[in-house]
Amino acid sequence: MDNTVVRNIHRADAAVLARLEKLGVATVHEAQGRAGLMQPYMRPVWRGARIAGSAVTALIHPGDNWMIHVAVEVLKPGDVLVVACSSENTDGAFGDLLATSLKAHGAKGAVLDVGCRDAQEITQMQFPLWSRAISAKGTVKATLGSVNLPVVCAGLRVCPGDVVVADDDGVVVVPRADAASVAQAGEERENKEAAARVKLAAGALGIDLYDMRKALAEKGLKYVDGPLD
Amino acid sequence: MDNTVVRNIHRADAAVLARLEKLGVATVHEAQGRAGLMQPYMRPVWRGARIAGSAVTALIHPGDNWMIHVAVEVLKPGDVLVVACSSENTDGAFGDLLATSLKAHGAKGAVLDVGCRDAQEITQMQFPLWSRAISAKGTVKATLGSVNLPVVCAGLRVCPGDVVVADDDGVVVVPRADAASVAQAGEERENKEAAARVKLAAGALGIDLYDMRKALAEKGLKYVDGPLD
Amino acid sequence: MDNTVVRNIHRADAAVLARLEKLGVATVHEAQGRAGLMQPYMRPVWRGARIAGSAVTALIHPGDNWMIHVAVEVLKPGDVLVVACSSENTDGAFGDLLATSLKAHGAKGAVLDVGCRDAQEITQMQFPLWSRAISAKGTVKATLGSVNLPVVCAGLRVCPGDVVVADDDGVVVVPRADAASVAQAGEERENKEAAARVKLAAGALGIDLYDMRKALAEKGLKYVDGPLD
Amino acid sequence: MDNTVVRNIHRADAAVLARLEKLGVATVHEAQGRAGLMQPYMRPVWRGARIAGSAVTALIHPGDNWMIHVAVEVLKPGDVLVVACSSENTDGAFGDLLATSLKAHGAKGAVLDVGCRDAQEITQMQFPLWSRAISAKGTVKATLGSVNLPVVCAGLRVCPGDVVVADDDGVVVVPRADAASVAQAGEERENKEAAARVKLAAGALGIDLYDMRKALAEKGLKYVDGPLD
Amino acid sequence: MDNTVVRNIHRADAAVLARLEKLGVATVHEAQGRAGLMQPYMRPVWRGARIAGSAVTALIHPGDNWMIHVAVEVLKPGDVLVVACSSENTDGAFGDLLATSLKAHGAKGAVLDVGCRDAQEITQMQFPLWSRAISAKGTVKATLGSVNLPVVCAGLRVCPGDVVVADDDGVVVVPRADAASVAQAGEERENKEAAARVKLAAGALGIDLYDMRKALAEKGLKYVDGPLD
Amino acid sequence: MDNTVVRNIHRADAAVLARLEKLGVATVHEAQGRAGLMQPYMRPVWRGARIAGSAVTALIHPGDNWMIHVAVEVLKPGDVLVVACSSENTDGAFGDLLATSLKAHGAKGAVLDVGCRDAQEITQMQFPLWSRAISAKGTVKATLGSVNLPVVCAGLRVCPGDVVVADDDGVVVVPRADAASVAQAGEERENKEAAARVKLAAGALGIDLYDMRKALAEKGLKYVDGPLD
Repeated sequence: MDNTVVRNIHRADAAVLARLEKLGVATVHEAQGRAGLMQPYMRPVWRGARIAGSAVTALIHPGDNWMIHVAVEVLKPGDVLVVACSSENTDGAFGDLLATSLKAHGAKGAVLDVGCRDAQEITQMQFPLWSRAISAKGTVKATLGSVNLPVVCAGLRVCPGDVVVADDDGVVVVPRADAASVAQAGEERENKEAAARVKLAAGALGIDLYDMRKALAEKGLKYVDGPLD
Repeated sequence: MDNTVVRNIHRADAAVLARLEKLGVATVHEAQGRAGLMQPYMRPVWRGARIAGSAVTALIHPGDNWMIHVAVEVLKPGDVLVVACSSENTDGAFGDLLATSLKAHGAKGAVLDVGCRDAQEITQMQFPLWSRAISAKGTVKATLGSVNLPVVCAGLRVCPGDVVVADDDGVVVVPRADAASVAQAGEERENKEAAARVKLAAGALGIDLYDMRKALAEKGLKYVDGPLD
Repeated sequence: MDNTVVRNIHRADAAVLARLEKLGVATVHEAQGRAGLMQPYMRPVWRGARIAGSAVTALIHPGDNWMIHVAVEVLKPGDVLVVACSSENTDGAFGDLLATSLKAHGAKGAVLDVGCRDAQEITQMQFPLWSRAISAKGTVKATLGSVNLPVVCAGLRVCPGDVVVADDDGVVVVPRADAASVAQAGEERENKEAAARVKLAAGALGIDLYDMRKALAEKGLKYVDGPLD
Repeated sequence: MDNTVVRNIHRADAAVLARLEKLGVATVHEAQGRAGLMQPYMRPVWRGARIAGSAVTALIHPGDNWMIHVAVEVLKPGDVLVVACSSENTDGAFGDLLATSLKAHGAKGAVLDVGCRDAQEITQMQFPLWSRAISAKGTVKATLGSVNLPVVCAGLRVCPGDVVVADDDGVVVVPRADAASVAQAGEERENKEAAARVKLAAGALGIDLYDMRKALAEKGLKYVDGPLD
Repeated sequence: MDNTVVRNIHRADAAVLARLEKLGVATVHEAQGRAGLMQPYMRPVWRGARIAGSAVTALIHPGDNWMIHVAVEVLKPGDVLVVACSSENTDGAFGDLLATSLKAHGAKGAVLDVGCRDAQEITQMQFPLWSRAISAKGTVKATLGSVNLPVVCAGLRVCPGDVVVADDDGVVVVPRADAASVAQAGEERENKEAAARVKLAAGALGIDLYDMRKALAEKGLKYVDGPLD
Repeated sequence: MDNTVVRNIHRADAAVLARLEKLGVATVHEAQGRAGLMQPYMRPVWRGARIAGSAVTALIHPGDNWMIHVAVEVLKPGDVLVVACSSENTDGAFGDLLATSLKAHGAKGAVLDVGCRDAQEITQMQFPLWSRAISAKGTVKATLGSVNLPVVCAGLRVCPGDVVVADDDGVVVVPRADAASVAQAGEERENKEAAARVKLAAGALGIDLYDMRKALAEKGLKYVDGPLD
């Protein structure tokens, strides 16, 4: 299956995507059992975006962005491009022309385990983009990779059609089959958190709200009055 | 003293805290003899805040934020929560619910030698927060640590009640006993710098203003006219 | 040539500098054959600046900013100060007083392979500044270095009078002798990219626009219809 | 499938494992199309081992080694334990007691995306071990993970029963279904390399041996006589 | 207390030091409640040493080793020199001449939060040395620091007279007042581990030996027979 | 001058090379005024080698080792191959076949600002090799670079024909024109150090030997008797 492009993939339901986008990364990550996060070096190029979409995956090689160009053809509106690399690399494999092209095809954003460039233009376009680095270093188009095969991006396995949710907290991925149940669990968690937020804002203590005092005492937590100095 | 919470600590004088807050990190650091800085990986989650407050310290373990919940109970208005960890870790031990709770109890901000999450919400709340990373990675509540014992945070020893000053330049800590004298020294430095700033803005050279020419010559600095190419 | 200050250097033509500034880092880097970039850890202290100017170079030592003060005297309006260090160091060798002084002498900005401080003040001044770190750590004035000798800054050789172009994508350096031809090549590239941008925005595929299909097939790229799951 | 232990897995053929072990990491990686390598931070605790075995996988959490203890029960002679972690962590989750236990059950070695400790004892035992760090930091047994589900370890997806080959060059993983064909391809490559080695040792030039002169010329490589200085 | 040398310090009992040295880093760290470890970037320059001694502390500045020379005068036989630095630095502040001098004064070894040089000579001398880097970069003697005041070294607070234990697992520090009780606890742990080692070597499972099955079941660990593929 | 190979270069005198090799990295670095060191991430693949030779330089691109093959043809006995890369990369661009080829042509060793592989074989061959990483990751042969043009390697400018000295302390480079005078200065330094070593081994204090007491007092160093606790 090397050097292969898979044209068609299954995608998640648009309504479920909208629900996951609203929940955001931290809630979705908790809702699927504290799983599915990319490593925290994956950061937004500009702050404030929040997206969810189906993953179109590409595997490239260090200093070579050829397969990103290939991937654009199989993108559909609402997709998120996820670019992995065969070794650690920060070269600027993605710039404002690719952002323009992705935008024209309706992509919601991109997640790059390499560098991006044209950061000012991409910020002005408000194209949602996450990357491991910003670097103007140019790339060649010499070595094949793959499109829409499973990849590992920022320490996380991503399959084509998985749901990618990204915001300022990073990037979380939900297997397509779990998307609806994770959305459901996330909304329940959100509701509980909304209630907790009101109580905490009014001064309630978390150790009371979450009923931790007994467990703390059983583990042996000691309180002393102090001050000790 | 393991697994201990100290309820009461001595705190710095509010008037002195206000003076140190106004001076900011770089000036306070110089004023206490170029000492007391956390390592520069400790960065603000959003840019533009400047705070000073008394340290309430917590020691947590990697992937576990239990003691942060415990610490909230002993916080008083004006305090800054300082969270250390027993080994290097970037998990998101602090999010918008904890920020809401700290704000409700009057905390001025928090400094985390781990990760934080809900960066968008915390930025919107304008809750002052410094951390070593932004990560949505969730944490458990399984292992005890301590509250209000001395800790090492980002390479710096912090005792409960020490003054924490933080802004875009990072975080500096002043022992409580030294706070007044450091504020005094900082204000004197600030006055000198204000005078220097006026002269430099008018085009004066630092090597004249600070009278460096003789020392440079004695050390052997040579001037050649050039150009050499 | 140790411990030497070269007073006069050749500088690039102002009109050429203006053309390179307009092109920006990514285009200039491509236009000179994908060469001349500093490593991507060199980042702007605040986002949004774009400058080009002639390099005035300084070599300092870790924890010591003496030669930056010396360098100010030989700066001319339009120059960019480039500070290298004899070993890796993040101490805050440059703050708002030096920024004030550089601004007073007409410097367009500075590039530091060490840390800077007073980030809030420098952001308010909108003084263009790139550095490897932000750190309040103060420095001494004890060891000589050089001004206007060639240096290596962030992995790149910089000679005095070279053209420094910097924006949110990082920093690229063009040898003075090549400045006009690189500007020319960059403008041609920009024109081509402008045409491509219009087509891509209209939905054209890069693999058609850049005529890649044949090369991809020759290298052995396979397409399968999918979905595979 | 969270918090699950899979008792039985398919394993690779012992004869094929022996062939892959003999080939070593670099050859196996090339033989499967330059794929399957862990990131280079995964290093041997002591130099000189070379192993191949079937992967038994474990997922642990930062600062918690509970599931390693659980994994021992399902290990069989010839297996290699592969330990992944839910976030970046260097705590010493594996020491000489676990090494003793793994050895007693016939494990060929272990690969840890966390830290190990008792490095001197493990070196004396000559137990083959790769890890991201050496750290004496102790761990707790508080949070469940999984055994024998697919994991991502050092940037690489590993499924239970995959072939793990490790030596001083790092760690490469071969899907069980591909093991025989990769061994075959590796041996062919080895034979070719042996022939090349003899010629190179006799002074042949690689650009002749691999017939590169024409391609270099077509790409535009220029030769000048020099010296240029 | 800036720029101060404290001539005399309390030291730990020689018999206790010998017991702690025999236990090694991992056991001592566990015996004092999983506390007191330096960060794992602190590594031995050569493998195989194991020492314990009383800490003589020095604080130096980046690129400046003056206070190490000053510290030698206050060292006594059996001491371990612990060198902290006011900011991150890898310059080679310690070489074979200092190693010769420390050895002549009976020092057991040194721990450097900076770089060392002359690695080949120091290895041949078998002088026990831990450092954050090996670097030939020379240092100046221009800025004062302190000797025998508390410092933070590799993330850990060290007071003069604290017990420093170091081996291939890193460096652990025990407060002098706790040395005897930690030695006692360590020996008890060692005895238990020796018994466990015999059982594990004979094939016993840790989950039986440590009686974990019930706790695992209560937390919800599921077993499935598999194989799943 | 892009994509160019320079066939002939000036080389340093063999007798001077032998003298510099004997001195080693730390002494040579000091002897040329604490200049010329590569960054400390450049480490020997195996410990114990010490070499000096004339630099043959190559510039490669990430994931591509083509120009190393080209460089072999212009190597002469006694040379050291210095490989720079156009961006940060750890791929294994150099293995035992290239080591065999370099050895056959009389190269003294190689210095790689990328990764190497076949570490076990290269160690057995005792081929002197320094690199930024060990990685089995294979490379392609697709993009031209240069041979025997000046490069920046590990933060240091290297010109063809410069003297490269390497040992366990790292790599230092001496401009060819300075080689004889640096050797002379190094030998003088070595003689002084030999005398100092004898005195230090006999217990002399560095602060007496180097006559530092007066300077320390003038700077304000205070001595207190202690103990303070």
